[in-house]
Amino acid sequence: PESKLPSLGTTIFTQMSALAQQHKAINLSQGFPDFDGPRYLQERLAWHVARGANQYAPMTGAQPLREAISRKTAELYGWQPDANSEITVTAGATEALYAAITALVRTGDEVICFDPSYDSYAPAIELAGGVVKRLALQPPHFRVDWAAFKNMLTPKTRMVILNTPHNPTATVWQQSDFAQLWQAIADQEIYVLSDEVYEHICFAPDGHASVLAHEALRERAVAVSSFGKTYHMTGWKVGYCVAPAAISAEIRKIHQYLTFSVNTPAQLALADMLEAEPEHYRALPAFYQAKRDRFVQALSASRLEVLPCSGTYFLLADYSAISDMDDVSFCRWLTTEHGVAAIPLSVFCADPFPHKLIRLCFAKQEATLDAAAERLVKL
Amino acid sequence: PESKLPSLGTTIFTQMSALAQQHKAINLSQGFPDFDGPRYLQERLAWHVARGANQYAPMTGAQPLREAISRKTAELYGWQPDANSEITVTAGATEALYAAITALVRTGDEVICFDPSYDSYAPAIELAGGVVKRLALQPPHFRVDWAAFKNMLTPKTRMVILNTPHNPTATVWQQSDFAQLWQAIADQEIYVLSDEVYEHICFAPDGHASVLAHEALRERAVAVSSFGKTYHMTGWKVGYCVAPAAISAEIRKIHQYLTFSVNTPAQLALADMLEAEPEHYRALPAFYQAKRDRFVQALSASRLEVLPCSGTYFLLADYSAISDMDDVSFCRWLTTEHGVAAIPLSVFCADPFPHKLIRLCFAKQEATLDAAAERLVKL
Ligand SMILES: CSCCC(=O)C(=O)O
Ligand SMILES: CSCCC(=O)C(=O)O
Repeated sequence: PESKLPSLGTTIFTQMSALAQQHKAINLSQGFPDFDGPRYLQERLAWHVARGANQYAPMTGAQPLREAISRKTAELYGWQPDANSEITVTAGATEALYAAITALVRTGDEVICFDPSYDSYAPAIELAGGVVKRLALQPPHFRVDWAAFKNMLTPKTRMVILNTPHNPTATVWQQSDFAQLWQAIADQEIYVLSDEVYEHICFAPDGHASVLAHEALRERAVAVSSFGKTYHMTGWKVGYCVAPAAISAEIRKIHQYLTFSVNTPAQLALADMLEAEPEHYRALPAFYQAKRDRFVQALSASRLEVLPCSGTYFLLADYSAISDMDDVSFCRWLTTEHGVAAIPLSVFCADPFPHKLIRLCFAKQEATLDAAAERLVKL
Repeated sequence: PESKLPSLGTTIFTQMSALAQQHKAINLSQGFPDFDGPRYLQERLAWHVARGANQYAPMTGAQPLREAISRKTAELYGWQPDANSEITVTAGATEALYAAITALVRTGDEVICFDPSYDSYAPAIELAGGVVKRLALQPPHFRVDWAAFKNMLTPKTRMVILNTPHNPTATVWQQSDFAQLWQAIADQEIYVLSDEVYEHICFAPDGHASVLAHEALRERAVAVSSFGKTYHMTGWKVGYCVAPAAISAEIRKIHQYLTFSVNTPAQLALADMLEAEPEHYRALPAFYQAKRDRFVQALSASRLEVLPCSGTYFLLADYSAISDMDDVSFCRWLTTEHGVAAIPLSVFCADPFPHKLIRLCFAKQEATLDAAAERLVKL
């Protein structure tokens, strides 16, 4: 059949993970931990399965999980969403993003993305008939030029998609960025889709700035998060979104025909975990900061130049002192010849990306990071 | 926000299950068992979680599960799909249906559905810009009038969606139906989406007729199934589709941005189950036929007139000897006044549906079925 997404192949994450496996390389490409999640969470899953909680969850999500999310949001961002009408549990953050875009973007609508941007946004926008407008950000700080942003707004602008902490650049938004965003879009009906899946992996002194902490913006915002990153269980595929009731109602209309509901025992186990051990997510920044610092320290002996990392479990590195190759070729060479798999940054950008940057995932055991650094130092 | 699906509210399944709970009615509405799945399957889930199989599964599905599906298909339908290129694991059958429709239906394309039809098809078609064409089937046999079907074909016809065993009518297609379908569409590039989630709950003498057993049709077909019904675990949300490689490639492009991948430990547990106990699905028709027969027998003392049931775990009943109410009112009255929740058949039809039919789910323990029948006999 003729393709609805003719320009798209398999995601880079699948490609690089396959190449890594094939060459037995240390896989720092696709973002997932090589260590396991909390024992308590696993035990609760087994418990709920054994007690027979195996039938359809409510379409909007299991009640205890929505309530736990509501409480966590209040604790962290000083505002409590309504568990019944403002929180929807989805099959990972990916489904939440897809459902929100499908619910809100109409044919001909313009959606502003900041490049580099996560690879699932554009296809979802295109399938909804929307037009992707890209504002390219520049290394090393990848900050938004708000004058340039304002220039991109047109009467057709319908949505802005942001991501903080940001995959792949490891930069974060500050409250002042949200203030600037609000100033720019206040007098137009523009929705804000805020991808915050790394909300608990933020190293900024002021912590994570959520769109939900901004009183005016959150009236038009969809905040997306997930448990895969927070609990080191990327394969469980439980995410959620928080949005005002009227927006949530539209997202749910899509969600109910996209997947209907999400794995029941996993939802109930996550609710137990949130309730019993809030220390886990509170301690996560320090946990990952230690990994980041160890890896950065080890790489200081290499010819890679590491960029600042304020959040996520990714680190950008400039390899221009090592090679003239384009980043895709460099990543293939790194995997096949030197046994370390990374992600080339250009795959997150539509425009030609002239920089020589790769993304390294440091959600790995110390031994893995040390072994990878040893290989990278030899380059 | 303006709605992309303005005519849609919450699914009837959610509404009726909520009403049933509120009135402590016996819930024969939403289709899910009130008994649990195999102990072995549950144990394998706990085992895979404990051994750390908690990160992203491959986007196309866990390899052992795709291979087990491939072997099962060969055993049942005499043809073996390629596990790598022709099978995709999805977040339940709902996601497979949505992804297939989104991948194949373009703006202005016509899609033929047989009414009554499952409630997720039409919204997915509309979101893809397609036009739903409905061929209304008539009780009690709900058979396709192939002359009428041929009259509906136009140069814009892009897809036909069928469902066998059929929810909600409990009728099944025979090989001769597939032969008629092929005759009608052979010389036009029309895709066939065959929803076969009840493939293992078929009471027809010749067993389940799958589109995959038809050599010519399967070159253009997407067969959708799921494990929720087969293993009494509707809340696990693992489904799949089988389609030729070129079609699967397009479905996967959508799937990778819709959900990316499916719960890893659940996939691995299901692969173990399929491998270790094929007797389970082989014995399922007899298991459900016993429930059907017990329930039908008990209802013979009532004023409900039960229709023939050749598959699924649903039974249709005509209540015209009891009441003149429309079916939605009758179902509400039945739930609130008589403590039995059922689904009105008209919700599966776009055109006014003049019949007085309700759908009763018999995926219940004997005690539940007996108690429900006792109440229904009093009507
Ligand atoms: C969904 S696979 C990709 C995982 C991820 O978020 C990343 O590596 O960026
Ligand atoms: C996805 S909820 C509906 C379950 C079901 O298939 C039905 O009741 O028809």
